[in-house]
Order: sequence, then C-alpha cells, then structure tokens
Amino acid sequence: MTVEKLALTTTSPARKPRSEGGADNALVAELTRLLGPKKVLFSFAERLSYRFDAIQFGVTPLAVVLPEGTEDVIATVKAARRAGVSIVGRGAASGLSGGAAPMQPSVVISFTRMTDLQIFPERREAIAQPGVITLAVTDAARPHGLIYPPDPASFRTSTIGGNLGENAGGPLCFKYGVTGDYVTALDFVDAEGELHTLKRDAYDLAGLLIGSEGTLGLITSATLRLTPPPKFTRTLMAHFAEVGQAAEAVSAAIAAGAVPGKLEFMDQACTNAVEDYLNLGLPRDAGAVLLVDTDGDDLDTVEEERALVEAACLEAGGQVRRAEGEAEAAALWQARRSVSPALGRIRPQRMNEDIVVPRSVLPEVVRQIRALGDASGFKLVQFGHIGDGNLHPNILFDPRKESEEAVHALAHEIALVALRHGGVLSGEHGIGTMKRAFMRDAVDAETMTALRNVKRALDPSGALNPGKILPEEA
Amino acid sequence: MTVEKLALTTTSPARKPRSEGGADNALVAELTRLLGPKKVLFSFAERLSYRFDAIQFGVTPLAVVLPEGTEDVIATVKAARRAGVSIVGRGAASGLSGGAAPMQPSVVISFTRMTDLQIFPERREAIAQPGVITLAVTDAARPHGLIYPPDPASFRTSTIGGNLGENAGGPLCFKYGVTGDYVTALDFVDAEGELHTLKRDAYDLAGLLIGSEGTLGLITSATLRLTPPPKFTRTLMAHFAEVGQAAEAVSAAIAAGAVPGKLEFMDQACTNAVEDYLNLGLPRDAGAVLLVDTDGDDLDTVEEERALVEAACLEAGGQVRRAEGEAEAAALWQARRSVSPALGRIRPQRMNEDIVVPRSVLPEVVRQIRALGDASGFKLVQFGHIGDGNLHPNILFDPRKESEEAVHALAHEIALVALRHGGVLSGEHGIGTMKRAFMRDAVDAETMTALRNVKRALDPSGALNPGKILPEEA
Repeated sequence: MTVEKLALTTTSPARKPRSEGGADNALVAELTRLLGPKKVLFSFAERLSYRFDAIQFGVTPLAVVLPEGTEDVIATVKAARRAGVSIVGRGAASGLSGGAAPMQPSVVISFTRMTDLQIFPERREAIAQPGVITLAVTDAARPHGLIYPPDPASFRTSTIGGNLGENAGGPLCFKYGVTGDYVTALDFVDAEGELHTLKRDAYDLAGLLIGSEGTLGLITSATLRLTPPPKFTRTLMAHFAEVGQAAEAVSAAIAAGAVPGKLEFMDQACTNAVEDYLNLGLPRDAGAVLLVDTDGDDLDTVEEERALVEAACLEAGGQVRRAEGEAEAAALWQARRSVSPALGRIRPQRMNEDIVVPRSVLPEVVRQIRALGDASGFKLVQFGHIGDGNLHPNILFDPRKESEEAVHALAHEIALVALRHGGVLSGEHGIGTMKRAFMRDAVDAETMTALRNVKRALDPSGALNPGKILPEEA
Repeated sequence: MTVEKLALTTTSPARKPRSEGGADNALVAELTRLLGPKKVLFSFAERLSYRFDAIQFGVTPLAVVLPEGTEDVIATVKAARRAGVSIVGRGAASGLSGGAAPMQPSVVISFTRMTDLQIFPERREAIAQPGVITLAVTDAARPHGLIYPPDPASFRTSTIGGNLGENAGGPLCFKYGVTGDYVTALDFVDAEGELHTLKRDAYDLAGLLIGSEGTLGLITSATLRLTPPPKFTRTLMAHFAEVGQAAEAVSAAIAAGAVPGKLEFMDQACTNAVEDYLNLGLPRDAGAVLLVDTDGDDLDTVEEERALVEAACLEAGGQVRRAEGEAEAAALWQARRSVSPALGRIRPQRMNEDIVVPRSVLPEVVRQIRALGDASGFKLVQFGHIGDGNLHPNILFDPRKESEEAVHALAHEIALVALRHGGVLSGEHGIGTMKRAFMRDAVDAETMTALRNVKRALDPSGALNPGKILPEEA
C-alpha cells in the first residue's frame, strides 16, 4: 500500500513538500542564461505556487519556466535533461486528478504565456498554443458563427494545454465529444527536446499524447475543430425522491430516443451544498436533481426531446420544472457550475472520482455508491455528467480529524464498483496521482506491460511528469 | 528507391510471389494439432487466394488459419511465434492500400468465421467480432431505430476487423466520423499471444491499435457506438465545366454553414467510366460532378442546407439537378459506389491514393493534380469525399505496357502536392504498402523514430504484419 499512501499523503497541505530545500541553482543559472531572467522563477515563494493543482499538493519545483514560444520549451527540456531533472507541464492547474502537481523535484513548465490563437473560419479550425484559455477559443470563434464545444466546468480559467493533457470534458461532451475529438493536429516537444508535428494518421501518436498528462511529451500547439452552435436550447430541471430514480429516468429518456446536449445530475448532499452557497431555490428535500438541456437547429425537435425527457422523469417518479427563458436556464446551470466551490465550504479536502459506467447500470451503481458512503461515515456527494454515465462521487474530509487511509479505502471501493459494472476510472479528469493506484484494478497485467512499454518508447528515462497514470512497478 | 520499387513491384500479378515454394509443413502440423483440420488451409491453391487485397499482390502465405474464436487466435499467434513466422490479419481483403497483403512468408489469420454480433439498444452499442460484415451491424441495429454510420464503399463485403485495421471511412464520415470515432472498447491479441481488454482511457492504446493495420496487435472484439439515423435526407447532383469550380463550390457551401451528410466528387474521366459501366445518364461532358446529401431530423433545415449547397454550386458556375424521390437519389448514389469496378474496366491496375487536404486549398490541389496527370501521359481520375478534403486520385495503368517506376513517380508527386498543402497521405484506406515509401515525406525524422519506438514497444520482434506503414529503416 506504499504507493496509495504516498499519493494520498501528498494531498494534505499541512505536510511539508519533500524538496522544500533550495532551488537547483546551477539549473536556474543555465535556464536564465538561455531564456533571460523574465521567464525563470526561482524564489521559494514563487516556486511554492507551482506545486499543486486544484485538488492535489505535490513537491515544490526546483525551478519554474514561463516559456513564450516553442523554442523556450525546447531549450528548457534540453537543459533539464542535461541536469538530470524531470519536467512537469502545467496549464492553469485547475485539474482535478493531480496531473500538474510535481511528484519529484522538477522543472515546471507553465504554459500561461503561450496564448497565440488563430481562427480560420473557412476551415472551421483554430490553432491554439497551450496557454490559451478554453473559453477564449469560443469567444474568438463566435463572431464567425462557430464554437469550440468542450466545456469543462473550469473553462473560464482552464487552458487548452491542460484540457489536452487530461482529455477534458464537460456537460456538452455527452452529445458533442471530449477534447480529443476536436483535435486534428498537434505539435509536441519530446523528452529529448525534439519538436514533432503530428496529424491524425496511422499510428495515432497525437491521440496517444492527448490524455497522457505530459508523460509522453509537451504539446506546444493544437489545431482544433470548430462547429456551428445549435440554434435552439431548452432547459429542464427534474427532482426525485431517490438517486436511483434519476438514473432510471436518464436511461429511459435516452433509450426513448432523446440525445440531450447536456444531462447533469446532483444528489441531495450536492444540491444542499450549492443551495447553502448560492441560495437559488433548489429543492433541498430531493434525493436527486437532474439538469437537462436539449438542443438543435429545429425548435420542434428540441421541444420534442425535452418532452421525451420530461415524460421519462415523470414516469420514474420525478417532478419537473421547465426553465422559462434564458435567465432561468442560466441560473439553473450556475448551480451545476458552482458545485466545486460549494463543496470546498463543507470540508477542507476532497477525493474526487470521475468514473464512467454504461448507462444501463447507472441506477445500480449510483445506489451502491450511496450505500458505501452511508456506511463509511464520510460525507459523500455524487454529481456528474450522467448522460454518458460519467459520475463524480466526491468524498469530503478533514485530514486533521479523519483518516486518509479510510478515505482512500472508500475511494478504492467506489472505483471497484465502477470496474465491476464494466466502467472506467476516468471520464474527463485524467488518472493523475489520484487514481494511479487503482490502475492495477482497471488494467490487466499484460496491458499494464504494454502501457509501460509505450511510455518507455517515448520517454525512456522517465523524465516527463514522473509518478502519474502508471502505478509504481512492483 | 529500393523500398518504393519493391512495394510497387508486388502490385503486379504477373510476377511470382516470393514464397511460392511450399507451406511450412511443421507449422501446419502444429496448427492442425492445436485447432483441428477444419480451421487450417495449407494447399497451394488455397494459400494463393490469401496473398492479396483489392489492390495489392503480396507473398503467398505459409499457412492460413480461419479462427472461430479468440482462443484460436491466441493459439495461432503463439504457434507462429514459436516457429519464428510472422502473422498477418485479414478481413474481407477489400482494402485499397495493401494492408492485408503479406509482404513476407507468413501465417495469415482470416477472421471471416468470427462473426458474433450482439446489439444492446439501451446502451446504443454493438459488440462485434472482427469478421462481422460492416453493413450487418446497421442491418441488426435498424429494427431498434439505430445505425452504425461508418460506410466504406465496400461495406457490403468489408468486415469490422478490416475497417478497424485501416480506420476506414466512407461518404457519411464527413458529418459522422470514421470507424475509430465509434469504438468505445476493444479486445486484442498482442504479438506474444496475450489477450488485452481495452477501454478508451489514459494512454489510448485502443486508438493506437485502430488504423495500425494489424502491426501492433490483432483485434478480436470491438464495442461500437450506434446512433439514430437522420429522419430526412435530400439529394442533389451538380456538374461543372472544370474540376476547380466543384472544389470552390464545396468550400463556399461549407463556409456558408451547410454540413451535408455526404459530399462526393467525381471528375470527368471518373464520370465517363461509371457511365460506360452503368449507363445512368450522367453528364459526360462535365469536368466534374458533385453528389450531395443533406440530412437531419428537421425537413426545413435539411431543405435549407440543400438550398445553400445549390446556391454555392450555381455561384461557382455549375448546373444543378435535385433528386426527386428516393429512387432517383439511389440511382445517383449507385454511380458513386460503382467507381471502383468501373475503373477496373479501363486498365488492369491502378495506384489509388487517399490524400486529405484542408478544404480551403481544394481548388488548387485538384487543379495541380489534374495538371500532373495530364502532363504524365497516364490515365488519371480523381474522385472522393471532397467534403472533408479526402481525394482519391487514381493512376490507371497496364503493367505490361507502362513503366511502374513512372506510375510510382507520379503517385509520389501527387502525395507531395497534398503534403505541401498541409494535407496527409491517408483519410480512410490506410498506409499499407501503397503509401509506405511516402511516409518519409509525411513525417519528420524525429517523429519517425517515435513511431518506430511505439511499434517496437508493442511488437519488439516485428512479427506482426511486417512491411506496412513504416518505411524500411535506412
């Protein structure tokens, strides 16, 4: 259990990072010589800020580089390799699996200054550097009648580079696909500092890079598909006495032919956390709340789909409220987007899962996880993109009072429920450090060997973001 | 130029296959002992039939295995490896890049008996063994109101396994995506005979397998997404004096907001070949013909999109004919589906390219390729899925009278036109043997090394389908 303990231990901000000591002065001098003083951070106070993402504390980096172009990335990787130091890429650090948190004393490459963005309306494409804010792509494309659909909850702060690293998704991804579905080409710098330009062709190396959390290479540019937005959207909220009913309504609505643009779920604990935070008038007594957008270019079809969802919700025992107008719809969606900050008010720490299970087993999975939570004594909330079976069970805890081993054991039980029902560990947050230990359960031994061989093929010395995705070798 | 010459040389049926000698008797005996006599073919006449695909002759296999389940595949791979013999997977061999043609004396595993197919309407998924005929998935799903969109021209004969191997596409793929976009999980047997079960998660090994032509593993089962078909479809044909005009119309229609379900193109030589073959009343004098389907769930939108395409065609100088009713639409689409057999009547051999270029450069690319063809003295036809910039320039030739080196040189020039315009070598046929030599132009040296490392990571001894995708090392 060493690995599991280590991974969880580092979630606690109370502990000292392992490399609290100094910067690597020789490396800092070399980087400063190569890049100039404005792109290299080395004071302890500055380095401290680059040791965590939105959920996970790691190790204080030896140096932080803020590249302004691909050449800076290449120079940094080569200098770090000469110094024998590992390299961790970082976007806005809004990730929820620990992907950007260094697990060893490393050089962190923070891409926030690489923000070039070009829109090509005729090709329906954008070319973005990794530091471009996710929402900025749609903001720039919208005057041309186009949007970039992937919409992680953090899309006002998250970056394209971070989204690529975790293959991020969001509510729209049920109907429109995740980050990787929108990438037609990318450039990356490999572990030796060599630049590669990839289209998506035989041996889909680009697809392999996407979601690899910077463990196979550092993406320095991506060509993204843009699409016209749907002309009409209609919003509906339903609430249910019990979580399994909500899951049943979802399964039934989709089986009846509805393909909602968004289909989100919050359980009672989650709804109450948001209500405490925002006071929106959400139904506090409900065991589960569904939020549904149907969308498309034909208003009749959009309304028909909303009616199908409504019928399925009523059939499953729910109560339904249609949003009248955009203001009401926006308020309902604000509720869903506020889950993360609302939960932060309840306990200082949380273990955030990201399982995906077949829709047909949703009722059973949601009920089993609820039962595990109730039996554990921990505060457990469930929410997520229930349309594609992507659930985020969150264990809220206080590391000063509650056992991290027990949190981890419960998280493991939840992961096993997903795997037993034909699910996967991660839908959109990535594996990172958070679910790394569970990979042993998710992947058979032969496939683990294949994954390790692929990692070794592209990063033989393990210099890129060590300690992520693949568990420690036995 | 050795590699290029070799690859092309083997396209000629007049030459003797390199391993015309005997079967590998010891291996045949071992396979027969393991699998029983009904699953192993070893007579010369039988083996001869498994040395080619629809466009490429290879080497006569040492033995052919017809597995009836995954255990048979595992036993065959292990036996072949013990005997030091390479392994080539094969579906219906309707491929157009040489992917299924053995390049060394090998064991061919022909998946045509592995035809289990299960439909799960509630999950909107099918689980298919690799020998399932592509169209059979939609045939089985349609009673449940679902279809499997990827529609290679050969979909009445091609198999899911072959489609996965080449990441095959078809007309519908412009709007709906290629084979890989519909795969949520797969099982494969690796080069050591170990079975792996993959979902699409971090390190997307499944995505890497798809399109790898059996060079990284043999897919034994795939979970495929199904979708409801569009409720309405409208068909339009347009013809133009000159090929560049057709390309301009396509660019303009899409820029104006049309997203046709299908958007196909045939040049004059192609149209006349089909007309000679089927006598459908196609416009023989036109320099280019476009075939367009607009589709969706709202008839008004579908008609509006057809009107947008029509306006763009007229603006570019074309003449337009709307298909009145399903029978006329079906006849027009029969024309497009008959291109391959029609071309086979003109010259005994053809070199079939599969380039994809950005839509914005289509007019220029189509004109440049036309000029190269005219200057070469070869019969060159162009057709393809012009909506996503996927063109199939075909060089028709008679190897008894025309120089294969010159064919290859022209094919290389065409590939370079695509690459110079930001394109890729293959949209849906794969690289195979056909475009293998051009990979040096398509991929920089560092990326080639990365691809070789990935291949080596999964197949260290190069036992799986040698001679495909990656060019010979210098």
